[in-house]
Amino acid sequence: MVALGGIGEIGRNMTVYELDGKLLIVDCGVLFPEDAQPGVDLILPDLRLVEDRVDDIEAIVVTHGHEDHIGALPWLLRSRRDIPVIGAQFSLALIAAKAKEHRITPNLRVVKERDRTRVGKFELEFFAVNHSIPDALAVGIRTEAGTVLHTGDIKLDQLPLDGRLTDLGGFARFGDEGVDLFCVDSTNAEVPGFVASEREIGPVLDSYIRSAPQRVIVASFASHVHRVQQMLDAAQRYGRKVAFVGRSMVRNMQIAQELGLLQVPDGLIRSLDKVLELPPEQVLLISTGSQGEPLSALSRMSRGEHRSVNLQEGDTVILASSMIPGNETSVFTVINELARVGVNVVHQGVAKVHVSGHASAGELLYLYNAVRPRNVVPVHGEWRHLRANAKLAAATGVSESQVLLAPNGTVVDLTNHRAKIVGHVDVGMVYVDGNAVGDIGENTLSDRLILGEGGFISITVAIDRQTGRAMGTPTLSGRGFSDDPKALDDVLPLVEAELARTEADGITDPHRVAQAVRRVVGRWVSDKYRRRPMIVPTVIDV
Amino acid sequence: MVALGGIGEIGRNMTVYELDGKLLIVDCGVLFPEDAQPGVDLILPDLRLVEDRVDDIEAIVVTHGHEDHIGALPWLLRSRRDIPVIGAQFSLALIAAKAKEHRITPNLRVVKERDRTRVGKFELEFFAVNHSIPDALAVGIRTEAGTVLHTGDIKLDQLPLDGRLTDLGGFARFGDEGVDLFCVDSTNAEVPGFVASEREIGPVLDSYIRSAPQRVIVASFASHVHRVQQMLDAAQRYGRKVAFVGRSMVRNMQIAQELGLLQVPDGLIRSLDKVLELPPEQVLLISTGSQGEPLSALSRMSRGEHRSVNLQEGDTVILASSMIPGNETSVFTVINELARVGVNVVHQGVAKVHVSGHASAGELLYLYNAVRPRNVVPVHGEWRHLRANAKLAAATGVSESQVLLAPNGTVVDLTNHRAKIVGHVDVGMVYVDGNAVGDIGENTLSDRLILGEGGFISITVAIDRQTGRAMGTPTLSGRGFSDDPKALDDVLPLVEAELARTEADGITDPHRVAQAVRRVVGRWVSDKYRRRPMIVPTVIDV
Repeated sequence: MVALGGIGEIGRNMTVYELDGKLLIVDCGVLFPEDAQPGVDLILPDLRLVEDRVDDIEAIVVTHGHEDHIGALPWLLRSRRDIPVIGAQFSLALIAAKAKEHRITPNLRVVKERDRTRVGKFELEFFAVNHSIPDALAVGIRTEAGTVLHTGDIKLDQLPLDGRLTDLGGFARFGDEGVDLFCVDSTNAEVPGFVASEREIGPVLDSYIRSAPQRVIVASFASHVHRVQQMLDAAQRYGRKVAFVGRSMVRNMQIAQELGLLQVPDGLIRSLDKVLELPPEQVLLISTGSQGEPLSALSRMSRGEHRSVNLQEGDTVILASSMIPGNETSVFTVINELARVGVNVVHQGVAKVHVSGHASAGELLYLYNAVRPRNVVPVHGEWRHLRANAKLAAATGVSESQVLLAPNGTVVDLTNHRAKIVGHVDVGMVYVDGNAVGDIGENTLSDRLILGEGGFISITVAIDRQTGRAMGTPTLSGRGFSDDPKALDDVLPLVEAELARTEADGITDPHRVAQAVRRVVGRWVSDKYRRRPMIVPTVIDV
Repeated sequence: MVALGGIGEIGRNMTVYELDGKLLIVDCGVLFPEDAQPGVDLILPDLRLVEDRVDDIEAIVVTHGHEDHIGALPWLLRSRRDIPVIGAQFSLALIAAKAKEHRITPNLRVVKERDRTRVGKFELEFFAVNHSIPDALAVGIRTEAGTVLHTGDIKLDQLPLDGRLTDLGGFARFGDEGVDLFCVDSTNAEVPGFVASEREIGPVLDSYIRSAPQRVIVASFASHVHRVQQMLDAAQRYGRKVAFVGRSMVRNMQIAQELGLLQVPDGLIRSLDKVLELPPEQVLLISTGSQGEPLSALSRMSRGEHRSVNLQEGDTVILASSMIPGNETSVFTVINELARVGVNVVHQGVAKVHVSGHASAGELLYLYNAVRPRNVVPVHGEWRHLRANAKLAAATGVSESQVLLAPNGTVVDLTNHRAKIVGHVDVGMVYVDGNAVGDIGENTLSDRLILGEGGFISITVAIDRQTGRAMGTPTLSGRGFSDDPKALDDVLPLVEAELARTEADGITDPHRVAQAVRRVVGRWVSDKYRRRPMIVPTVIDV
């Protein structure tokens, strides 16, 4: 196996299993960029390895429908559209909707828990798994070379709302056969204990919705069907009508309703315009934007810029969601904007309106003890999570040498029931910016970081190509450097003096003149301002 | 009163009280920038109001020595160096050290709890306050116009390590006189309950330090003397020697030791070089960098770039600190780098190695009930904190109309024991970048945001000033736009065609030619890439 994404990071999960030259892929997700990747929209797994061997791919198994597991599929399917995509009904419905936006019709094969199927030499068995989205599956893979169990994202809610438990018994039975390689979700391995049941959120939402004097807006992840179900139930109890707000929320809940995953009483859900005609105490909006995304419905409401929802003092906004690390500032910006208007804001920090979708340490121990694997590769986590997960595996008796930390690109081989790191393939970050993929690399990002911190100063000079003499006055301008229109006045004489020098030295090569100018301006700005803008000299010879 | 900073934000706390044309200032701190303020080093309160009336300032009272309360003092003192700065011994020692770096000798007046003093018509009384730094004070202000109690940063640890309790009895006595205006720390007003005692951190640190097999590095805020004391105590118990790492940590702990606030057994603290000569199990380093600051000692250690500390697998790093909102990504970057090497990392998320320095809701209720104020202005908080604090005040019986949300610049007047918002003064963000103050404004920041997201494309053209004819080929270059060297090739013919058109139209004004070029390139990049780099045309006429 080799992971092309997801190990050493949270996101773009993608694992490739190989047997006799044939490939089975589990998940194909995207990663969302951090501050160090400015202007990037999405990060894809490095698909080169599989694109080069696209005809060897037997199938792609998707464990569930979250973006970090399915988001990169359209890019992979561009290189071969008919790769079978195997997954549960809800996951595939979300993939179909996404593929449609990319004008792709994927080759989908629905499976469900307990199903067994074969693709090439890979025998697959699927296990029900509890997560923060319906219909999640773990996949067991039997091959001549050994047996693999890949959990996907998993937790062990013992009282799940839909009664669909993680199939611990199935894992134990699979374990009885001997699991050679166990790939386990690491996200919450650092967190002691157990995740509370999703069921505990219901009464909290209920009490806020019951007592709210005016409109209630709940923001949540757009695929969290069970969370939304609990909102609908409370709305029904207290005579509120519901509208979904935000494209992905509307789309996903329609799919969930069609598949019978979301139970909607007749007449409860209406269009946004219809709901907004009701008295405030009869309104519940369920919205996207729980991560403070600046263009989301909730953000626009908080700034008073939403097309139809105009929040008032005394309205209630509930953020029934976690804060994904890196999003805290945006989320708090939204909360503060709402608080400024006098909206009552309820969030994870002050009330139990969210539980995680990933197993805490206590649950992971149950998994290890059920499966009793010979070898473990912690997946789905940053280094801190992988290390914590590895410790848990060892604590349950897996030999420490058989817990492999195998970051993206590390090739793990399974021979005679023993996993071993045997090599490494190059995997990079593949950035999507606008509609181009892959042309943004470290140079561009590092330039963006410099420009974003300090702006630039440009100096444009025309020189005579025979003599090197400057023609006219150099043009100096700064962007992102200073609001002071005179900020660059002092440096012009220095540039002119330098140009006189290069001319006197007989330098006519525009490149060398540009270097000289850059040096003078760079030194000046560092001495005078202690700043480091990018210095951009352009010397043209005419 | 008017706050020039600290209300509607966490940082740059500064409140101005005025009586008969004379000013009393409480605190003068800095704010640390967010993502929306790229390249900014610090944000100062808008000092114009007080700088214009610098001779009216009777004194500056500092409640404690944190940067968000004292950091902007050097800038204020530049406009009048002899303003009396009144505060407790440790606070003033930190100010003296800071002022020295700015080559200023401030006019310091040491006070302590229970002291009373008069500056002009302001009668001051100081109260002991418990916070995450020693020697914090609240200040009571008696004037003809009314009585004010300003808490500064405060919590109510009932078992403080130094036995110095928040003087709730003093507050109650002051309350008996009738407090007209109560300005209260809002930071943790959203958080239910009570902050655990600092004392509870000790045993946790102790157990990690006792059982660590190799070196231990604890990172903490550089002014948190009591936290450091608990580390020293554990080091002493388990035979480890201690070195301080990081300039501010070394400096502050030396001051604390000199003032008798930090108790250091003989021979416990050594130089870093000496400590590193010891066997790993005898080493404890106490370091800065708990917020993941890229240049801090801890960050450099995590990247293997520290001058003398080379961390090994099996070493232990404890982050005995909170994560200040906005810093999560940097902190987790450090943690992941450490985990990658195999360092055991302990942080707030997994163990009780930090408690907050600010009163939670439960403690704030004690304060309101002790003081029984007539009017309340919640300070030190973002909107969400201010709203939560206002609710607490109202819950204890303060009339809702007498709880004033008065963001920076709002003028609150006190007449006949009634506080009222009577006006507003303009206050802006004053950015420090490098060694210049105030020349960075919204234009520069918005340019930096655009450049940081998309880079720029520059087009340089020389035209004949008589005919408008382009001389030679336009120079096109992008920075922060693409790594692909051919990325801009397609647009050159479009630019040349446009230049032919402007020439044909008889356009010789470089500015108009530049506009035409900008339009063509902007449209091309949006169509082809769906990106929005800055377009920077430079047209020179020769």
